[in-house]
Amino acid sequence: MKIIIAGSGAMGSRFGLMLHRSGNDVILVDGWKEHIDKINNDGLQANLNGEEVVEKIPAYHQDDLADVDFSADLVILFTKAMQLETMLKSLQPCLAEETKVLCLLNGIGHEDIIKNYVKFENIFIGNTMWTAGMDGPGRVTLFGSGSLDLQNLGAGKEEAAKEITKVLSEAELHANFSEDILASIYRKACVNGTMNGLCTMLNSNMTEFGGTTYADDIVEAIVTEFVTVAKAQNIELDQPAILAQIKKCYDPETIGLHHPSMYQDLIINNRLTEIDYINGAIVRKGKEFGISTPYCAFLTQLIHVKEEILGAK
Amino acid sequence: MKIIIAGSGAMGSRFGLMLHRSGNDVILVDGWKEHIDKINNDGLQANLNGEEVVEKIPAYHQDDLADVDFSADLVILFTKAMQLETMLKSLQPCLAEETKVLCLLNGIGHEDIIKNYVKFENIFIGNTMWTAGMDGPGRVTLFGSGSLDLQNLGAGKEEAAKEITKVLSEAELHANFSEDILASIYRKACVNGTMNGLCTMLNSNMTEFGGTTYADDIVEAIVTEFVTVAKAQNIELDQPAILAQIKKCYDPETIGLHHPSMYQDLIINNRLTEIDYINGAIVRKGKEFGISTPYCAFLTQLIHVKEEILGAK
Repeated sequence: MKIIIAGSGAMGSRFGLMLHRSGNDVILVDGWKEHIDKINNDGLQANLNGEEVVEKIPAYHQDDLADVDFSADLVILFTKAMQLETMLKSLQPCLAEETKVLCLLNGIGHEDIIKNYVKFENIFIGNTMWTAGMDGPGRVTLFGSGSLDLQNLGAGKEEAAKEITKVLSEAELHANFSEDILASIYRKACVNGTMNGLCTMLNSNMTEFGGTTYADDIVEAIVTEFVTVAKAQNIELDQPAILAQIKKCYDPETIGLHHPSMYQDLIINNRLTEIDYINGAIVRKGKEFGISTPYCAFLTQLIHVKEEILGAK
Repeated sequence: MKIIIAGSGAMGSRFGLMLHRSGNDVILVDGWKEHIDKINNDGLQANLNGEEVVEKIPAYHQDDLADVDFSADLVILFTKAMQLETMLKSLQPCLAEETKVLCLLNGIGHEDIIKNYVKFENIFIGNTMWTAGMDGPGRVTLFGSGSLDLQNLGAGKEEAAKEITKVLSEAELHANFSEDILASIYRKACVNGTMNGLCTMLNSNMTEFGGTTYADDIVEAIVTEFVTVAKAQNIELDQPAILAQIKKCYDPETIGLHHPSMYQDLIINNRLTEIDYINGAIVRKGKEFGISTPYCAFLTQLIHVKEEILGAK
């Protein structure tokens, strides 16, 4: 299958590498020139569960796609949320009538953007539990195992979704066809929509936050907004189960002592956050359905203020 | 007049000193033993607009009032909000049937506590623009000028309020009888209810916060909650005027580069904040009147979480 990895950071590199090794015709696309040049010169280098791997995979800067003769069967989107639209514009020369697009970005509501560039029935959406780390230009660390769920958004496209699932699973990416992908995306967004913004605002790890008297009240207020907005879209979520899942993040024996990714983006690396595609998406969808979402709104605003004060880019 | 200064920190010391110098029979009460001992040993020392002043004013720890023979005509309350109730309990031996109590604490709703200890008609409430600084035990710096407004809470007690005004003005404290003290207290609380909590959460000064894209939206959402809760109590506030007053705080040429007092309390001095008596009071009063106050609620919760994470005391 002719596959474009659109956004070839750590996770995109993992998918690209594994799909290339299983025999697909893969190209990597990204906006980081140094990374692209390094891959083209020396191959994509990976520490894959302890094994040193180098694979020659063609890589392109997203601004250089105009003359590339590559009509993709499948595009897998792995950009940061705020880079999605620019990437979709860049990809135009490689999109054919029947190119399928699988969106694996974190957050909610990306299909509202993608559908302006791709027929709705060719959009597939997924949720991945794989991890990956970027070591530097051209080099990633890929430890552990994972899986992903995916589903067609368009009616009657189950077979196409299952075909994508098959290609990914043949690459040992452990893909499963899901019957309620939006629910699992919302469940993940509930965790990100609490831990990310709150720990970033509070300069805390998850154990510190979870140990405070008001943690439960705050988390419940935010999750209630997610659940209410989901329900308006006929996505049924089990709120007590989600609250229990969030509480697991507080455990210092597992992940509690970590700072969530948004904290790392903003506080450590001074980068703009994805808040608009997590809590901010709930605010936008809430407005569509006439649902009040003040906790998500305030948290989104506070994170944006913090980005501006810190001069994040 | 026999006057107790209940809470003799920087501002209480200013009022005590000026009322003592104008011929009143003043005692100072506080919970800080070192400060009380120093005043009793060496007098209250002040740099009063550049002049060195020492006044022998009797000072008592609030736990030592049981045997003090001092039946107050007037008690002026100057504690931190969270110390108010303990102070009122301690003051019992010095309260007579007709003792008047003037509350000059920051924040909203203190009368709900005071009325459990003093007849409602003897409660007076005020709003002071004086400043004062604590240099250390027994010593304060008192620069500049100021004024205060005050009013009776009980019906028909205007004359008593004016008498208190007269005593304070004779001490050059520039007191004015107000016809709408609750409105001016709410106006001040709107400034504190935005700048204090927000700059504390954001680790910013007022200019930094005010310069961000979302500052106006956040401030308006919070002030709207204050104004709505005030209106339910028949307190009419001019919202555009309050928003304009808050914007003045952003000016780097005046006070914009300062961190508000709550930031100093929590971030610099690791002390518990007065958030429950500013935004938290709006949440409580909102519940009484069935008014939704999510921005005040979330901000109050966030500040409490931050207090706990920092181990504030």
